[in-house]
Amino acid sequence: MRIARFSVREGSPAAGSVSFGIIEGDAAQPDSLVVHTLAGHPFGTPQPTGETHRLQDVRLLAPMLPSKIVAVGRNYAAHAAELGNEVPAVPLTFFKPSTAVIGPTESIAYPPFSSDVQYEAELAVVIGRMCREVPLERVPEVVFGYTCANDVTARDVQQREGQWARAKGFDTSCPLGPWIETDLDPADLAVTCTVNGELRQAGRTSQMVRSVAELIAHVSEAMTLLPGDVILTGTPAGVGPLNIGDEVAVSVEGIGTLSNKVIKRG
Amino acid sequence: MRIARFSVREGSPAAGSVSFGIIEGDAAQPDSLVVHTLAGHPFGTPQPTGETHRLQDVRLLAPMLPSKIVAVGRNYAAHAAELGNEVPAVPLTFFKPSTAVIGPTESIAYPPFSSDVQYEAELAVVIGRMCREVPLERVPEVVFGYTCANDVTARDVQQREGQWARAKGFDTSCPLGPWIETDLDPADLAVTCTVNGELRQAGRTSQMVRSVAELIAHVSEAMTLLPGDVILTGTPAGVGPLNIGDEVAVSVEGIGTLSNKVIKRG
Repeated sequence: MRIARFSVREGSPAAGSVSFGIIEGDAAQPDSLVVHTLAGHPFGTPQPTGETHRLQDVRLLAPMLPSKIVAVGRNYAAHAAELGNEVPAVPLTFFKPSTAVIGPTESIAYPPFSSDVQYEAELAVVIGRMCREVPLERVPEVVFGYTCANDVTARDVQQREGQWARAKGFDTSCPLGPWIETDLDPADLAVTCTVNGELRQAGRTSQMVRSVAELIAHVSEAMTLLPGDVILTGTPAGVGPLNIGDEVAVSVEGIGTLSNKVIKRG
Repeated sequence: MRIARFSVREGSPAAGSVSFGIIEGDAAQPDSLVVHTLAGHPFGTPQPTGETHRLQDVRLLAPMLPSKIVAVGRNYAAHAAELGNEVPAVPLTFFKPSTAVIGPTESIAYPPFSSDVQYEAELAVVIGRMCREVPLERVPEVVFGYTCANDVTARDVQQREGQWARAKGFDTSCPLGPWIETDLDPADLAVTCTVNGELRQAGRTSQMVRSVAELIAHVSEAMTLLPGDVILTGTPAGVGPLNIGDEVAVSVEGIGTLSNKVIKRG
């Protein structure tokens, strides 16, 4: 099942309202896609309202507004090596704030305090149930689904500041989308990034140092995860700079493509 | 003005409801203190409902539920030195998640993955207005008030993991309270910590490497701050371990005392 969050474009009686919805149709035929509006949030048993829109008539928003985003650094050995780092003995976990989240139709605003903003394509896990101390084998019960994420990073700031709140937490540094796929095995999916159509990252989730289940067990050992919270699972090799005017696209096999423009911060 | 968040104890017609309120009375005479219930949140012009409770009849909660907590490391030179660190050239900023927040009547639950949980007494700043890129001289406009915080830290986990999400983000690692004082000059306040009544930390905010205004300008350069967000301003020298059964109390001059028990995680 594909779950989106959307607003209805001008001209419709429902214009301005924000809803969750279930996307149906053939992804290879974008014109065929429709979204069935849901009442309330999509956790538990989704309740369709009966209202349906063509996907091209709605504006997709970030598919979730997480209370927190927990990310992991250096979870692909080839990416750790490309920045001269070792794979950490314990997963390296950090937060991105809710204010960093943007959706698939919004732009990454280049922050004025950096001159080296980079893309990092990642598989994102969306939590579906409040949980803590989740044993490995029960992780599937707390996962709502998966989406694409770009862990946008001010590399120069990251290198100069010991902790990464500003480098990885600035506004627009967490594009999520285009929707959440709830039926997906995360074990071996292609994760790619293109900039202006040119391939820059091409990894597979099977190359992760720690699996999705290991990461969620590790994070939830310390803290409660709430429905809608997002876990970013690390980026494969090939990270590099973004420039104003670029179009950066993260794709995860079985989910879709999250594409964002890079603009000057207004 | 002192703003609290509270629930009404059993037996009252208002039992179970959670409200903000204004505390009045003589702090030296705790029995004289009353809380005037507010309608909605306390930002802007607080709207009293006319309902009043004796403070001893309510249960104080964390005075704010922040969307994010941005904290700063090594902002007192003597504390940086005691852990063998230098004062960083750029403020070292990190997040604590909303799930870490507890109030003055809740307990710090010692997490099973650490054997060296420590207290860190701090002045906390509560943001009152949505803001970004706040210039130094306009910081007072975005500050709602001040409260006491304990930046509870699993020191062993902090030392073994490069980023501090788990070490400083576990459940109950962010006690806040007992209330927010809105009329306070943060320039030179005593910040103290006692454990079981014994003095462990005694610093003054005038010893901060970066002032409250500098920290808020620095953080908001990168990210939007929302009403209720909390900035922790660093801890003075004297940090040390907590044990199950301890009572740890953080006091900030002009605000009050935030006291929490340490218990085993249930």
